[in-house]
This record gives sequence, C-alpha cells and structure tokens, in this order.
Amino acid sequence: MTRSELTEKILATKLKKKLTWAMLTDKVGRSKIWSTTALLGQMPLSKEEAERVAGVLELNEEEIALLQVVPNRGTDKVVPVDPTIYRFYELIQVYGQTWKELIHEEFGDGIMSAIDFDMSLERQPDPKGDRVKIVMTGKFLQYKKY
Amino acid sequence: MTRSELTEKILATKLKKKLTWAMLTDKVGRSKIWSTTALLGQMPLSKEEAERVAGVLELNEEEIALLQVVPNRGTDKVVPVDPTIYRFYELIQVYGQTWKELIHEEFGDGIMSAIDFDMSLERQPDPKGDRVKIVMTGKFLQYKKY
Amino acid sequence: MTRSELTEKILATKLKKKLTWAMLTDKVGRSKIWSTTALLGQMPLSKEEAERVAGVLELNEEEIALLQVVPNRGTDKVVPVDPTIYRFYELIQVYGQTWKELIHEEFGDGIMSAIDFDMSLERQPDPKGDRVKIVMTGKFLQYKKY
Amino acid sequence: MTRSELTEKILATKLKKKLTWAMLTDKVGRSKIWSTTALLGQMPLSKEEAERVAGVLELNEEEIALLQVVPNRGTDKVVPVDPTIYRFYELIQVYGQTWKELIHEEFGDGIMSAIDFDMSLERQPDPKGDRVKIVMTGKFLQYKKY
Amino acid sequence: MTRSELTEKILATKLKKKLTWAMLTDKVGRSKIWSTTALLGQMPLSKEEAERVAGVLELNEEEIALLQVVPNRGTDKVVPVDPTIYRFYELIQVYGQTWKELIHEEFGDGIMSAIDFDMSLERQPDPKGDRVKIVMTGKFLQYKKY
Amino acid sequence: MTRSELTEKILATKLKKKLTWAMLTDKVGRSKIWSTTALLGQMPLSKEEAERVAGVLELNEEEIALLQVVPNRGTDKVVPVDPTIYRFYELIQVYGQTWKELIHEEFGDGIMSAIDFDMSLERQPDPKGDRVKIVMTGKFLQYKKY
Amino acid sequence: MTRSELTEKILATKLKKKLTWAMLTDKVGRSKIWSTTALLGQMPLSKEEAERVAGVLELNEEEIALLQVVPNRGTDKVVPVDPTIYRFYELIQVYGQTWKELIHEEFGDGIMSAIDFDMSLERQPDPKGDRVKIVMTGKFLQYKKY
Amino acid sequence: MTRSELTEKILATKLKKKLTWAMLTDKVGRSKIWSTTALLGQMPLSKEEAERVAGVLELNEEEIALLQVVPNRGTDKVVPVDPTIYRFYELIQVYGQTWKELIHEEFGDGIMSAIDFDMSLERQPDPKGDRVKIVMTGKFLQYKKY
Amino acid sequence: MTRSELTEKILATKLKKKLTWAMLTDKVGRSKIWSTTALLGQMPLSKEEAERVAGVLELNEEEIALLQVVPNRGTDKVVPVDPTIYRFYELIQVYGQTWKELIHEEFGDGIMSAIDFDMSLERQPDPKGDRVKIVMTGKFLQYKKY
Amino acid sequence: MTRSELTEKILATKLKKKLTWAMLTDKVGRSKIWSTTALLGQMPLSKEEAERVAGVLELNEEEIALLQVVPNRGTDKVVPVDPTIYRFYELIQVYGQTWKELIHEEFGDGIMSAIDFDMSLERQPDPKGDRVKIVMTGKFLQYKKY
Repeated sequence: MTRSELTEKILATKLKKKLTWAMLTDKVGRSKIWSTTALLGQMPLSKEEAERVAGVLELNEEEIALLQVVPNRGTDKVVPVDPTIYRFYELIQVYGQTWKELIHEEFGDGIMSAIDFDMSLERQPDPKGDRVKIVMTGKFLQYKKY
Repeated sequence: MTRSELTEKILATKLKKKLTWAMLTDKVGRSKIWSTTALLGQMPLSKEEAERVAGVLELNEEEIALLQVVPNRGTDKVVPVDPTIYRFYELIQVYGQTWKELIHEEFGDGIMSAIDFDMSLERQPDPKGDRVKIVMTGKFLQYKKY
Repeated sequence: MTRSELTEKILATKLKKKLTWAMLTDKVGRSKIWSTTALLGQMPLSKEEAERVAGVLELNEEEIALLQVVPNRGTDKVVPVDPTIYRFYELIQVYGQTWKELIHEEFGDGIMSAIDFDMSLERQPDPKGDRVKIVMTGKFLQYKKY
Repeated sequence: MTRSELTEKILATKLKKKLTWAMLTDKVGRSKIWSTTALLGQMPLSKEEAERVAGVLELNEEEIALLQVVPNRGTDKVVPVDPTIYRFYELIQVYGQTWKELIHEEFGDGIMSAIDFDMSLERQPDPKGDRVKIVMTGKFLQYKKY
Repeated sequence: MTRSELTEKILATKLKKKLTWAMLTDKVGRSKIWSTTALLGQMPLSKEEAERVAGVLELNEEEIALLQVVPNRGTDKVVPVDPTIYRFYELIQVYGQTWKELIHEEFGDGIMSAIDFDMSLERQPDPKGDRVKIVMTGKFLQYKKY
Repeated sequence: MTRSELTEKILATKLKKKLTWAMLTDKVGRSKIWSTTALLGQMPLSKEEAERVAGVLELNEEEIALLQVVPNRGTDKVVPVDPTIYRFYELIQVYGQTWKELIHEEFGDGIMSAIDFDMSLERQPDPKGDRVKIVMTGKFLQYKKY
Repeated sequence: MTRSELTEKILATKLKKKLTWAMLTDKVGRSKIWSTTALLGQMPLSKEEAERVAGVLELNEEEIALLQVVPNRGTDKVVPVDPTIYRFYELIQVYGQTWKELIHEEFGDGIMSAIDFDMSLERQPDPKGDRVKIVMTGKFLQYKKY
Repeated sequence: MTRSELTEKILATKLKKKLTWAMLTDKVGRSKIWSTTALLGQMPLSKEEAERVAGVLELNEEEIALLQVVPNRGTDKVVPVDPTIYRFYELIQVYGQTWKELIHEEFGDGIMSAIDFDMSLERQPDPKGDRVKIVMTGKFLQYKKY
Repeated sequence: MTRSELTEKILATKLKKKLTWAMLTDKVGRSKIWSTTALLGQMPLSKEEAERVAGVLELNEEEIALLQVVPNRGTDKVVPVDPTIYRFYELIQVYGQTWKELIHEEFGDGIMSAIDFDMSLERQPDPKGDRVKIVMTGKFLQYKKY
Repeated sequence: MTRSELTEKILATKLKKKLTWAMLTDKVGRSKIWSTTALLGQMPLSKEEAERVAGVLELNEEEIALLQVVPNRGTDKVVPVDPTIYRFYELIQVYGQTWKELIHEEFGDGIMSAIDFDMSLERQPDPKGDRVKIVMTGKFLQYKKY
C-alpha cells in the first residue's frame, strides 16, 4: 500500500461514515489545516496522533505505521486546474514579485520559510458576502553570507 | 512604450533616487501591497493615484496614462525559480488540496475569489526569529446551479 | 471508487440502456448543460438530484454519495486534442485579448466570473446549415482596490 | 514592421488619443467584437475598412496594407495567465466534454466551426450585479464519411 | 470497456486471425483510410457498418454499440516519436507556413477543413523506388466577417 | 543578417510591391509550393534561382548568397496555433496511426520520406464549395536489417 | 498483450535463465545491435527470426506473432534521464549543428537516413582505459527539388 | 559581445568570403569535426588556434580572447526540429535502450564518456548511394562503488 | 516484477520490520549513501551484497537477481516537487553557473564526473541548529581535443 | 540597465582585463564561491563589497547600486544543457530520494536549508586524477507542527 492509496481509503471512509475534517481534527488534536493536510498525505502524524485517528478511520497496523512515514510531498499537477486551487496559483502570478519586494524591503535578503510555517483558514462574516480568511506566518530566513 | 518597459523604468528610478515601496505607497495612497503590485504593473492606478506618484517617479504624460490601463497580468514563469517566490508555489503543492477541502466543508461548493480579494504583509516579532505574516481575505463565491 | 470511475460507469450505463443526456436531465431537474456537466463529474449534485437519477443509472448508495462530493474539476489535457473541444481553445487564442479589452471598456477592471456563471447550448436553424448557439452569462466581478 | 508591432502602435495611439474600441468600431463598420479582434491583429481588414480607420489611427500606406494581410493568428501563451482571459480557459477544463457530448447528441458527429462563426459580448443588467453576456454561433460541420 | 481497450482488442484479433485492413475495409464498406481510422478508434461507425464488421472481429453487443459512439479523438503524444508518423509532423514544421500562404493567396482568408475532408493513401510505382501517394481534399472554409 | 530577417524583408517587399507567390514562383522556376517554401526560408535556392528572384525582391549580394545556404529548418512552435496550420496538426492526431498501419500493410516496415518528397496544392472546384486539394508523394524507405 | 508487455517478459526470462544479448543474437542471426533492438521492441522480426528465438525465450504463438508486427517505435521520455543514455542526448546538444554543417558541406542539402541505416557497438582496447566504439552509417538522402 | 554573436559573425564572414569548414579546419589544426564544433561555439580554442584562425575570419583581439573562453554548451532546442539534426534524436528514441544494454553487457555498470570522446564524420562511397559514416569512441567510465 | 515494484516492496518491508537505512547499510557493507541509493533502485548490488541483504528484506531468488541488474536510473519528475529534494534543484538554479566558472578556472575545460563520484551525508552539530553536511568528490574529466 | 546586462558587462571586463574569480574574490572579501555567485548576479553585495570591487571592474554609480539590489535568482533553463552543470542535475535524478530518506532518518521531518547554507569547491589531489571536492552544509529546518 502506498501513501496515496491510503489517502484514497481515508477519503472513502470519510464519505461512507459522513465524517468531517473538523471531526477528524478533534482526533488528531492539532489545528484543522495541519490535521487535514496530514490526513491528505502531506505531513507525517506522530504515533499518538495516528493511533487516535485510527479507530474512526478503521485503519489497521500497517496503515497506522504508514501515516507516520514522512511522505513524498506535492502533486502531479504543475499548474492546478481545479478552480478552487487555481486561484492560489493566480495569486502567485499577480502578487509573486510584490511578495519578494516587500519581504526584502522589510527584512533584507531572504525568504519566508515554508517549513517553519503555520497557517489558518476561517470564515470571516461580511454583510456583502462572507469571506475566506487565510492567515499564514513563516519564519523569515536570512540568506547566509560566507 | 509597453507596460513592462514602464515597470523597468520605475525600478530604475526607485534605485537611483533611493526610494522605498513605503514612500511610493504614501504617494499612491492605498495599502502597501496593492500599491507595490500596481507599480510593478499588475494593477491599474486611477488618474489621481497615477498623478500623485508621477512626480517622484519622474513620469511623463504618456507614462501616467499607461499606468491607468488595465494591464495584462501575470508573468512568463510557469513555475517561479526565485527562491523567495518559489516558497509560495510550494505551499500550493503541499496545501492546495487542503484549502479546497476546508473551503468546501465550511462554505459549500465554490472558491475564494482572487478578484474581490485583499491582502497584507507585515513583520510579526518573535523571539525565535521574526516572522513574515500574510493575511488574505477573498469573498467566497458559490458555484451557481442552473 | 473514484469520481472518474463513476463517470465511466455512468457512460457505460447510458450506452447500454440507450439513454440520452436529455433523459438524464429530466431526472436531474436542472438545465441540460449543467446536468450533463455534473454527471460527467464536474459539478456536485444535491442529495435529491442524485437520488432522482440513481434509479435509471443503477447507482448504489456509495455512488449516490460520491455524486454529492465537490469534485476535483478539470482534465488532464493542457491543450485539448479532440477537434470538437479544440475549437473552443482556438477561440481563446484568437479572441482572448478581445474579450479582455471589451470587458474592461464596458465594465472597468475585472473579470467575467466562471463560478457565478450559466450557459446554454442549442441548435439554431439556418438555411445555410444549422448552427450551434451558445449563450453564456457570468457576473462581472470588479477588482477590489485596498 | 510586423503585424504585432503594428498592434502595439495602434494601442499606443488609442491610449494617446483617448480612443475607445467603440469609436474604432464605428470606423471599421462591423461588429464591435470583430472590429476589435481585427485591430488587435487577429483578422484582416478589407481595403475599405483599413482606409476608414487609418485617419484616426494615423496609419501610413505600409500600415494600411499590413492591416489587410491575413495574420498569423494566436498568441504565445499555451495557457493564458491573465485572470480575465484565464476564466475562458477554465470553462474548457470544466465544460469541454459537456460541449462535445451535447453537440454530438443534438447534431451527430461533428464540430461547431470556429471559422464560420460569430460572437457578441454585451452587458446584461442584473439587480444582483450586471453580467457579461456572450453569445456565439458557429455553423455545425458534420464529419464527412468516405 | 473503453474505446481504447476496444481498439486493443481489435488489433489483437486482427493479429490472431491474420486479418488485413483491406479485409476489414471490405466489411466496413467505405474507403480503406476511413475504415482503418474508424477501427483504430478515431471515427464512429454506423450501426450497419459496426454489425458488418462484428463477425470477423468477434465483437459482442456492447462492443458493437461502443463502435458507434463518437470517440474522443486524438492521442496522448504532443509530438509523435514513431518515425513513420513523425515525418508528417516534420512536414508541418517545414511546409506549415507555405500551406497558409498559398491557401490565402488562392482562396482568401480561411482554412482547409479537417472535418469536411477526405483522403486516400496508395502506392505509386516508380522505377527509382515506389512512392507513398497521399491525396487529401478539404472544403475551403472562409472566415466569416460580422 | 540572419535567414529569418531575410524572410521578413522578402515578405515586406512582397507586400509593398503587391507581388504574389505565383509571380515569385515564375522567377524561381520551380513548383509554386517549393518556391514559396524556399522564399519563406525552409529550402536553399540555387545560385541561378536566387539571382533570378533577386531583382524583383530587391536583394543585394549578401542576401543572394544567404538564400543559397541550407537553412536551419522548422519553427519555434511545437504545436501550431494559427488555425489554418493547426488543421494539419489535427490530421496527425486523428490519422497518424492510420498512415502508419496502411504504409506498413502496403509496403512493409519503413516510412514515407519527407526528403525525397514532393507536393502540390491546388483548388478543386466543387458545387458544394471549392476544396483545397493537396497531393504529396514521398519515396518509401524500407528499414534496413543488418 | 502489448508489445511492451512482451518486452518486459523477454527481460524477465533473460534474467531468470541468465541469458545474454550475445546468446539471443545467435538465435536471431543478425548483428548484435539490431537483434537487441528488435527484442527490446523497436524492430519487427521476420517469422524465421521470431521462431528461432522463441524456444530459448519460451514464447507462445501469440508472442511469436507479436514479434513480427511493426512496432510503435520510441519511448515516453522526451529527454532521457538515465545517465548512460543521456550522454547521447548531450552529443546532440554539443555536436548537432556540426553534423548538419559537415553533412551539407560534404554532400549538399539533405540528411543522413535513420532508416537505411546500420550501426555497430564494440569495445576498443586502450591502455588508458578501454573505449566504447560506435560506428554508424546512414545513406545520404538528398532533398528533392521540384 | 557574447559567444553566440561571435558565432553569427563567423558564419557571416564564412559566407561572404566563401570559406569552407575544411579551410577553417586547416587553420585550427585539429580534426574537422572538432574544429567546426569549436568555431560554432561549443569548444574553446587555445590561444594558438584562435590566433591562427583570426586572420581569415577577420577577428579582433576581443574576439580572439572570446574564442578561448569555455563556452556555455548546448542549444535552446529541447527537441531539434531541423530534419538533419532530428534524425540523431530519433536514433536515441529507437536505439537508446539498446546502447545501454550492450554497454552494460560488455563493460559492466557505467557509461560512454561524452567528454573523453572523439568522433569523425566522413563520406563512405556506396554504389547504392553514398553514406554518411560517423565513428565515435568514448572512454568507458565505470560507476564507482563506495 | 520490475525494479520499481521491488523498491516498493523493500520500502514496505522496511516499514513493517522497523528497519533503518543504517541497519540495511550494515548488511550491504558499503557507505550509507551508496547502500541506500542502491536499495532505492538506482545502483546495482553485487551478488554478495544482494544475498547479504536478502534475509532481512525477505527477498526471493528472482528479487535477488533483479537487485544485480543495472537499473534504468532517474525519476519521472523533471523538476522535483518534494520540498526536501527541491532545495537541491534550487542550488542548481542559484549556483550552477558558479560551479561551472570555478571548475573551469581551477581545472580547465571539463566536468566533475557524476560516475567516478562519491558522496557522504552526515549531521554536523552546531549550537545554532545542527546542519546537514554533504561532501561530494568527483573526478575531474578534461574535455578531449582531437 | 538590468542585472543580467550588468553580469554580461562584468564578464566582458573580466575577459578583457584577464581577471580571475580568485582576484575578484580578494576584492569582495568573502569566500570564492559566494563572491563568484554574487558577481554572476545571484546574490546582492553590501555597499562596501560593491565599492571594493567597482574599481577593478570599472563600474559606475548606477552599477554599484544595482549590485546591492536583491536579484531575481535562478535561470531560464528548466533542465541545464551545459554538460558541466548538467552533472549536478543528474545527481538529483539519481540521489534525490536518498538525500530525502537519510535526512529524515537522521533528523526527522524537515529539509536542508538552501538559505542558511554555505558551500566550498576545491581541488582534491588524487594520484588517479585530481577530484573536484564540494562541501555544503545547510541548517536542518524542522517542519513545524501546529
């Protein structure tokens, strides 16, 4: 069994048992975005996290072990075609250079880490239509000179 | 003169006169991220905004007019190679499916708009090393059924 | 079972039972173009719609549930090679910039939504040869300034 | 001078003289969408059309002649990155197979011509926000059997 | 069963029973090039054609029905690598612009239809080595002005 | 001066002097399709051919010499986007495997040469609309066994 | 069974029975490079060749027949990543234009045939380290003028 | 001046002065294939070689120095489209795996070097049509185990 | 069984039996980086090495033989998307030209071999956070002149 | 002036004045690999570093300022074609997964930073042929869980 086959099984069980990511997050015991990402096969769970989620997801020992392996991250899509995901790619096309300029102006030469990184996604009520609010923070990493 | 030639000129003037995006934002009169994006050629300025920024950037009439044209947005890079920008592409690879799942679980079928959208980027002090904090909100747009 | 396997099954049943998209549309209860798109795996059906279409398509409970999941939209083809579909891609190559210019001239800076969007496709009789008539309307979304 | 250099010059003159596509359409004497497409370098103008538009666009003899040459159509972008144009590409990803299915169900095996084709783009008032309305008709071309 | 699986089965039966495209063409009752193309999964057969060919190819009812469905045309290869097919791609690289120029000079603005199209392929005896002779005619389609 | 710059100059002169490919073919003294292809920069002319065409095209000594150099053939487009040229690419997608099968059935293992090759393109009158007729013959080259 | 499945089976049998290409070449009865290429699925064997090799490779009737079919040649790799094969691709990058220049200088306008072509690969002893020696000859094919 | 601009100049001078690669090889004083490759910008010349060729090619001091710089090798074409060069790419598609298998069978795990490598290209007279003969030898490099 | 299926099996056994690469390296008897690379399917093991590792990995005779075959090296990813691997690709983007310049300045025209090559990867303690230390040496190979 | 034009100028001056990277490194005052990388346009120099190097490189004020701007890093080549650089890409193809496995086994889930990173490149004498020795250390960055 590969990790992506396990992800498929998790999605099927979630559908069959009418589970939500919120319910699964409760089992994992971390933030909703991290827990969902992990169950989608992009982050490794700890032994405890994997065992807590195993019951509701009906996982066996091999699957519990597989959840703890550091996965090969990323997808097969160079450019995402699903419209919900594509909009984030569009942000890179439009704002990418701006992020670079403002990070350098504020911090100097370096990057926002995508590893020492956290994120949340929530609903922001708005009379003109509720909004998706995403907050991300990543440690600034300075380019080393040597 | 094309818009990208104008962007090159703006960058050259900014360098020569030791301007910052913060100074230019003061002239434009909008948020720093929007103003920078616009001056980098990804958003059109209003007549007033363009005229306010024209002095410090030493722009002539044709250039002021060009700043007001809706630009052809986006870049030539399918996948960004600059490390500072690439990290955002990496987020799509790792978190893209999560964003999709959580937006659908919270809002139903639809997307976060990249048009009715705003964003900020700021420094978040942190004893373990300051962090880049990015907050973005986009209107949830529901898929129409018909 | 994945959504694309379900689409394959639907197509096989449609062929075996000599169903048409028009017949299936009657069951779904929405427009022909939306109903076909949904059954081809690009839109989620509501519980009621899925149940109404389940009988004629011989779907079981798992399949009915799967029809209600928001799908990963889009195809594997970056450029379509089927001639019937390619002609629409050709329209983008020839008319894309025109659409952009005229939308901006009429509405200002923004886009035609592909989410708050509807479409119809019908036969337009014509003595020189009948024509395919496609009407699409999408809400104009203005770029937010902030 | 190449055709794309001529298009650049037309856009510059349009900007300098504050012309609109509607004004230029009046000179060309055809529909707004066809006239704009032609002036953007995707359709050849007739001698009369080119001469009528030459005055306001300040074109010389060589440029008038160049407007009448059948152009090399299309762009350099395999996938459009400008958001306003991308939405049309997204429609192909989501609706492409539907168009194919419904054209075949209604007409049999064949395509909607992109050559014997016309289109309009207009504003459709709507209390919930005006909509972009696009109507296109293309002659159905039946695959020849031989 | 998908159409490409059916094509694989037809090729296997053809090999096992030592059939030739010429024999299969006799059953289909159309030109050799069209019949071969159809049996390779690129054209739909009529009910009569499919039934006539079913016996020798040992097809069941489902397969006979599948032969009549308009297929998704085209291949997965953007550029063909098989040398026999590649040579035709090479012709486009070398002669493509010439075809365009001469069609426009002779007919005006338009294209040679690939839909209202026929072709033959035959051996042309030649003392210096026999030649492959391909004759294709496609209806000239004039670009509509509107 | 590169060969493609020379092609551009030839096209400009052809437009300015209202020349046709037919007129230029008369000077070159070969078939219309070969002569056009050569003047478009895909075939080398002989010294005599280049000199005969030099007068009407107003070419100098360097340009006459350049016309005789074997050119780097082909274009920058992997897939042609101009609709008139694309239709030929579409033929490869639909008929490529057929050509391969029928060439092998008729001749055995080998290819149709694209080097020992000739072609013509002419108008075929037809009451239902005139047709573009293309005839190509290429020497069959048998794969050598060793 | 497809040809590539047959190749996989041949490789498995070769491994299990500790066969070498040299041994298999003895059965085929042609040069080592051609025989290996054919057994790897890139050349069709004659009936006699296929039957001679069938015993040692434990092939059944269907497989013997399949070996005689002209294969779809080539691979799925646009650029080879295996280092042993990549070096040949590197030669094209470094020497491609040289081959073209020297072939044209020596022979005139044309190509080295890859069809009427033969090759050998052998070990060339060398005190500084043995060398791989590859000799290839291909018929020069002159571009036809017409 | 970049190296590719220098190559262009060399080609122009060669054309103007009716030089051949054979003549230039005499000046360089190495094999014809290496000398041509170097003058095409893929190999650095020694000071002596560069100075010997400078006279006939009318090079100044800067150009003589540039000829001695190790160049950035390779081209912009991932897959060559010129037919004369493409045939070599086709050989990789058809024979690549064979080269790998036979090198490993003869030498063990390793590669044929493309650095410690030499090659010749000559005409091989043949009553059925002269042949291009290419001989290449490259040192076998064994994969190191550690 | 293909080599990549064998790699999958090895990874599954490693997970099930809680093996580490360090333990497996002990069996193989070479450096950790080479042993891991070999078991991941990129290097062939000797008979002895394969047999030593067979017990703990529960391999049968066929699998032991397969481990000794020179593999088709490389992956399907043109650009790696896993963040841990991508960082090495990023080094090429940033430092590639530097490596080239400094190798040429120090050694002359040539390359660092990736075949006569070794590497180690270890932890380097550091009070500011431990570091990954990679040391690689490759034989300098000088370009042959001939 | 863009940064890449400045790099071209630096390379030309270096050639004209027979400078070496070692000499330039002395002016910059950092390691040879960092200094070379910076002068090749991939790292920003400090004011002092830029001024120290300005004399020997004959840079004016604008160029000194430009050297201090954080550059857009990376190249236009998705896969490097220069053989000296390609070998590093080949290492990723062969060793990429190994690096990932061993980093995770030694450090847990995370990456080797390419930002908090240093490297050296030197000659390692060896009786069997000197070797290029590259040592790189990058801080291990642990994936944050949240």
